[in-house]
Amino acid sequence: MQQWLEERLLKLNLTETMEKPDGFSRLSYSAEEWAARAKFIELAEELGLAVREDAAGNAIARWNPPSVTEEAPAIAFGSHVDTVTNGGGYDGVAGVLCALATVYQLQEDGFVPAKPLEVICFASEESARFGVSTIGSKAMSGLLDKDTLADVKDQDGVTIKEAVEERGLVYDDTPSAARSEAELEEFIELHIEQGTRVEQAGADVGAVTAIACPIRLQVDGQGKAGHTGTTPMDRRKDALVMAAELITFVYERAQALNERGGMPIVATASTVSCEPNVMNVIPDRVQLGIDIRSVSDALKEELAADIRAKSAEIMARFRVTLEIATLVNNPSVQLDPSIHEALVGAAGAAGLTNYTLESGAGHDVMNMAHRWPAGLLFIPCRDGLSHHPDEHASLADLENGVKVLTAYVKNKAGD
Amino acid sequence: MQQWLEERLLKLNLTETMEKPDGFSRLSYSAEEWAARAKFIELAEELGLAVREDAAGNAIARWNPPSVTEEAPAIAFGSHVDTVTNGGGYDGVAGVLCALATVYQLQEDGFVPAKPLEVICFASEESARFGVSTIGSKAMSGLLDKDTLADVKDQDGVTIKEAVEERGLVYDDTPSAARSEAELEEFIELHIEQGTRVEQAGADVGAVTAIACPIRLQVDGQGKAGHTGTTPMDRRKDALVMAAELITFVYERAQALNERGGMPIVATASTVSCEPNVMNVIPDRVQLGIDIRSVSDALKEELAADIRAKSAEIMARFRVTLEIATLVNNPSVQLDPSIHEALVGAAGAAGLTNYTLESGAGHDVMNMAHRWPAGLLFIPCRDGLSHHPDEHASLADLENGVKVLTAYVKNKAGD
Repeated sequence: MQQWLEERLLKLNLTETMEKPDGFSRLSYSAEEWAARAKFIELAEELGLAVREDAAGNAIARWNPPSVTEEAPAIAFGSHVDTVTNGGGYDGVAGVLCALATVYQLQEDGFVPAKPLEVICFASEESARFGVSTIGSKAMSGLLDKDTLADVKDQDGVTIKEAVEERGLVYDDTPSAARSEAELEEFIELHIEQGTRVEQAGADVGAVTAIACPIRLQVDGQGKAGHTGTTPMDRRKDALVMAAELITFVYERAQALNERGGMPIVATASTVSCEPNVMNVIPDRVQLGIDIRSVSDALKEELAADIRAKSAEIMARFRVTLEIATLVNNPSVQLDPSIHEALVGAAGAAGLTNYTLESGAGHDVMNMAHRWPAGLLFIPCRDGLSHHPDEHASLADLENGVKVLTAYVKNKAGD
Repeated sequence: MQQWLEERLLKLNLTETMEKPDGFSRLSYSAEEWAARAKFIELAEELGLAVREDAAGNAIARWNPPSVTEEAPAIAFGSHVDTVTNGGGYDGVAGVLCALATVYQLQEDGFVPAKPLEVICFASEESARFGVSTIGSKAMSGLLDKDTLADVKDQDGVTIKEAVEERGLVYDDTPSAARSEAELEEFIELHIEQGTRVEQAGADVGAVTAIACPIRLQVDGQGKAGHTGTTPMDRRKDALVMAAELITFVYERAQALNERGGMPIVATASTVSCEPNVMNVIPDRVQLGIDIRSVSDALKEELAADIRAKSAEIMARFRVTLEIATLVNNPSVQLDPSIHEALVGAAGAAGLTNYTLESGAGHDVMNMAHRWPAGLLFIPCRDGLSHHPDEHASLADLENGVKVLTAYVKNKAGD
């Protein structure tokens, strides 16, 4: 199985080796994503699956045994093959690869499912090109707001609409990729963890209960410029000093909320820009981006409110202006408890240990969960590293993922 | 006098109005600087001054009355006409304008000096283009290290050597602009304050005792990247959080050193860059620029040492790497006490009030002070604003400057 996985891992990444100093760059709706997607189709067809492409560019490979009607709801698996710039070859690929390998294993075992199985390769999961993530799974789940997104541009000025049409699709048709509830029984994604909690727990895999979607804040601070040499300390309105207090606050307050017990929360001041950003001028404008995540929406709201209160206090004390805009406020997504339970059971049946956790990152499954019962299974990746050329999941961990999915299908789609 | 000043202020700025939304952009050794310099030469020659240009591009206008030998040491005044990008029309220009106006006033008064007078328009004072300041006055003072500077590039990749030669000069000849001690008796610069201390003291002008040259530190912080959603708070090495502590420390420690009494000190974390600076990745690299100024070199060194100690403490606590490089460590420049006293006396003789202070910004006079007794006179500028299109000095303040210099010359170069 590991050799089978390795050969197809290389094929899906269109590479001779996974040791690529610059990693893989297959941006949303790029020719590179489409080349990997073509490999997915080729590998699915080698397994005898019937592949169709939908109006959003998702590729859907279906195993519909003769004994099962064409209309029967499928158990679907899947993930994506696009990447960030200089990303890794496992984020997304691991999910489609392990799903294909599960079909292969079932066929090797002579198992014929009592329900249709699908492996879906979603288009355009990463936000690296357009700042918009999971476009393909949004379309399939009926969540795509095509008019709002049409004119969003990449850094070269290419719009999403143009990028989609460069791939031979008709942008205005993309909403027709939405599928009815009756088409799927459930959806399960396998993904690398992009963290180290499963490994630290000493477990083989991680069955996920919920996805912590972010609140994202943008803080715009306006102080007053001045010469660094001629403006006395007690007459300054330094926007960067104000921002620094807020950065420290975000970090310390998130830590305190975790120490209080209950649901975990993480918060990060992850972006900063400063104007004029020259050595001899006091900064007068600073912009911060703050990312807050927890599966508890109440906890995210509490921290966002704390940040607003701290900002008000800083504004009063430093006589600067701080404006806070909410860029994103996505409620966290609860996954299906019975699917979680079945994944834990499948791990046990495969002789593997599970560590149950929530996901701090978003995945295609969070859209699918809006319409279908859904589950998410993590396999470890080395040092939790992702979105990086050194991203790595071992063949043994990939094989463990296949074992769990195979046991899962045998349980759910046996006679 | 105010009408005379206003007309020539516009001419030196090559403009019909000082209300320019984008300000003035006359970068070092640019065609724009040279156009303003040509205006300076034209105005000086209108006053009957003999103008020569030296090998570094400084323009030297000399009033050598027939009664005085050509070799007699001159009392020299001057400043510069280059600007930062989108700068004001007073930083530098005020100094050459008031010096020319002083010659005009003396001539109007029928005063013939007993010593030669010079008005010098220095080349390339601002560091905006090459990151190197006061090139012309360095050359005249014998401080120019031409070999080190030759290959320093602007953002378009043009070297200082190429820029100098575009102006028709021979770069390798620039050191010959150095003048002997015997050529000048003393040098006095008039400049806008670029701060608000004179105005806040309710005074008309400010005679300066010393120039606080900077220590500049570059802090390189290396933490560890990770997904903002999947990395627990207690497992982070966030380079921006570490930098924020240092920004706050620089501000608070500089305040504390001022509250201790004694010499003032200012310190600013004025530049910041963060990598990868994307919303869903924990910052792993941050670079800070810190500018420290005081006329007390010991106090600057004390604060720099405090910053290094704080960095060591942060390194230990956050398990990040912090490297601190000293980019600049220029000893502060003491100006000539007897010239300071004479400037204070001249202000009194002109019926004006003086506030004695030190300069937090560097000027051409700091180089000239290495070779000749030197002085610096500030006139106020509105809200202390400089390096900005809204930079403004009133005609009344410019006239006050002329009155002080005129009284000064009558005292020092009378019969």
